[in-house]
Amino acid sequence: MELVAIGTVRSPLTDRAAAPKQGDEGAPEATLEFDAGVADALDGVASGDELLVLTWLDRARRDVLRVRPRDDPARPVRGVFTTRSPDRPNPIGLHRVRVVAVDGLHLRVRDLEALDGTPIVDVKPVLGGVDER
Amino acid sequence: MELVAIGTVRSPLTDRAAAPKQGDEGAPEATLEFDAGVADALDGVASGDELLVLTWLDRARRDVLRVRPRDDPARPVRGVFTTRSPDRPNPIGLHRVRVVAVDGLHLRVRDLEALDGTPIVDVKPVLGGVDER
Repeated sequence: MELVAIGTVRSPLTDRAAAPKQGDEGAPEATLEFDAGVADALDGVASGDELLVLTWLDRARRDVLRVRPRDDPARPVRGVFTTRSPDRPNPIGLHRVRVVAVDGLHLRVRDLEALDGTPIVDVKPVLGGVDER
Repeated sequence: MELVAIGTVRSPLTDRAAAPKQGDEGAPEATLEFDAGVADALDGVASGDELLVLTWLDRARRDVLRVRPRDDPARPVRGVFTTRSPDRPNPIGLHRVRVVAVDGLHLRVRDLEALDGTPIVDVKPVLGGVDER
């Protein structure tokens, strides 16, 4: 089960400690730079779309199974599968973003808390109701 | 970027063609069997929880970049990143499920359309509003 990078996050965020915990908690705009080999897979993506971006959180730890949610010392430790901590056995990031501009292989997006240089591994649409699929 | 399986889906669904396209379109109950090595990461998961389960869709094709959404011949082909097709460069499945029972390393869940034997790679909570995190 080998993931291939399909692109890279370009963001002003470079430091995990300074990054917001979620994209809707003050993340700056970022650019998704896709590899030319996946251009066809982007066909139909448009400004205004809400997308789920999956990343490989390459600066996370894979040997952490329990954490204090949001690094809050007042909260008890619990399993990472009940939290969005980047530290987990398979550090896949799941980010809900809004596309603000499309320029070929570059998507400008809002609400992405991933750090600069983070590999992108997948993109999916946000699912609407059953009638809209 | 090597994924490790942390568990396996056990489901009556064995045939991709017969499986529902999404979990809320008639999927049967299924069991998530986790490996003993990630028991601590499940600490806090409870019956009634809504979870996002990430899987490795091991029967998908990785060389498909454009598809007809929902295999509907009436719809034009478009990029896989605008669809939930399992065929995509990194075939990661994203499934929103409801936990109906917890028994040690086994979680019984509703609304999972993944096939029997599918490797599980991550579990995340559904995020509530900012105030609830």
